[in-house]
Amino acid sequence: MTTTDDGPAAATRRRGAHAPGRAQQPGSVRRPAGRSVTSRVLSVLSAFSGECPRLSLSDISRRTAMPLTTAHRLVNELTSWGALERDRDGRYQIGLHLWEVGALAPRGLGLREAAMPYLEDLYEVTHQHVQLAVLDGADVLYLERISGRDAVAVHSRVGGRFPAHATGVGLALLAHAPAAAQEAYLAGPLAAFTDRTIADPWRLRCALAEVRRHGYVISDRQVTLDAVSVAAPVRDAEDEVIAALSVVVRVGETQPGALVPAVVTAARGLSHWLRSHPERP
Amino acid sequence: MTTTDDGPAAATRRRGAHAPGRAQQPGSVRRPAGRSVTSRVLSVLSAFSGECPRLSLSDISRRTAMPLTTAHRLVNELTSWGALERDRDGRYQIGLHLWEVGALAPRGLGLREAAMPYLEDLYEVTHQHVQLAVLDGADVLYLERISGRDAVAVHSRVGGRFPAHATGVGLALLAHAPAAAQEAYLAGPLAAFTDRTIADPWRLRCALAEVRRHGYVISDRQVTLDAVSVAAPVRDAEDEVIAALSVVVRVGETQPGALVPAVVTAARGLSHWLRSHPERP
Repeated sequence: MTTTDDGPAAATRRRGAHAPGRAQQPGSVRRPAGRSVTSRVLSVLSAFSGECPRLSLSDISRRTAMPLTTAHRLVNELTSWGALERDRDGRYQIGLHLWEVGALAPRGLGLREAAMPYLEDLYEVTHQHVQLAVLDGADVLYLERISGRDAVAVHSRVGGRFPAHATGVGLALLAHAPAAAQEAYLAGPLAAFTDRTIADPWRLRCALAEVRRHGYVISDRQVTLDAVSVAAPVRDAEDEVIAALSVVVRVGETQPGALVPAVVTAARGLSHWLRSHPERP
Repeated sequence: MTTTDDGPAAATRRRGAHAPGRAQQPGSVRRPAGRSVTSRVLSVLSAFSGECPRLSLSDISRRTAMPLTTAHRLVNELTSWGALERDRDGRYQIGLHLWEVGALAPRGLGLREAAMPYLEDLYEVTHQHVQLAVLDGADVLYLERISGRDAVAVHSRVGGRFPAHATGVGLALLAHAPAAAQEAYLAGPLAAFTDRTIADPWRLRCALAEVRRHGYVISDRQVTLDAVSVAAPVRDAEDEVIAALSVVVRVGETQPGALVPAVVTAARGLSHWLRSHPERP
């Protein structure tokens, strides 16, 4: 897990503009004094976020702190390659070709591809939200989400982030992260989203120990007061926890405890598959 | 459909190294005489492909026709941002952060997000391959694929491409592409993958007319001799065909005709949803 090995700080630096939780604000990213052209190009891409997926040229210029002329030149080059596209109103958005190249990331779609059959099984027995996530610094990054039509509303989206301590997948991942990364996380501020969020370092430390002891976690109304998630860690061929999957249900509708066997079975099934295919993802 | 409007040629230029069918060979892409730094950065990303997702520094230097020192500097900048990552063997691969930014592409995950409930329904009634694709120049680009465990082997992958004329989704999309794009396609070489592939311009013209008349297409053993697909077009709020979805089954196992109502119903369901949500994807 590259990103946890080098710790939250590095990951936060790398995270780009579209990260909630401990992330930087849009436009505040990557402005070293003497910027290389490469860093300028990347800062244009970082200007886009889940909250602001479409930007005008002046938005981009402002968010990247670049003169309009410079931004215009870079945006044109990125657009002709397909990294950016213009929508009907002339605003810029991330282009299909960048999505296509990003789809080659083994830790993204590669892992998701391997997980899909197990996620499908979980979905068919629950018809709720089924999620696959990895830890990237202080956040969980959602690689996949399959959702039932009338499943409870959730904040996660594929490609979206959320602070690890407040989610089931996050707790499952954090519990198995390198000690240094865990300590760094515990030392940092812990945002509370509901009065149920584990926002106290000592409680979080206990929660992580519980996850390691039981092999699963029930995250109870930590993000919203109507949703509870059941999550379990996924191990790769080196027996390292590289991902976590979860089912999110509406409070009171399903007994979370009843979902544990299914979630743990799916997580183990995927871990077995990864063990038998060490070259992937 | 930006990419068909400017025709296959433009899309091929933009397509990057990882495109089969009429695409360029890896490494042969984007080498204008006076290259800007931006084009160099993008050519590094284009060096990666579905066939070669992991590259050494010298691979990258060779494929981008850049001196090792230049390639090294760019690769380092891309790695520190998260566009590239190093695997256990020290080779480079597309990084999770680039996947994350690519996930913001409305024509990629945006459309896929909207389509997922309809794809799920199709999957649950068929347990075969269920695919969502868009037309990008001369290729179909697969945005999503849900696969049953023992479904017939297929060549498609999420983020992968295939020549439009040889696939169900491709025929459904090509049939509704702008006339100029269709003529350009019919004028180009038509690769044959089996003796069933529609590799003759006149037959292809008839096939496209059939698709427009019936509103669906059965692509019979065009890619491999054991697979047949049933596809239907998906329309956006402007009633433009922007995507197609299909079910791929093993020949002889399921009567393709029996799948038509389900496929057409799912495609129309998604089209209705898109019409009622003009702002998305």
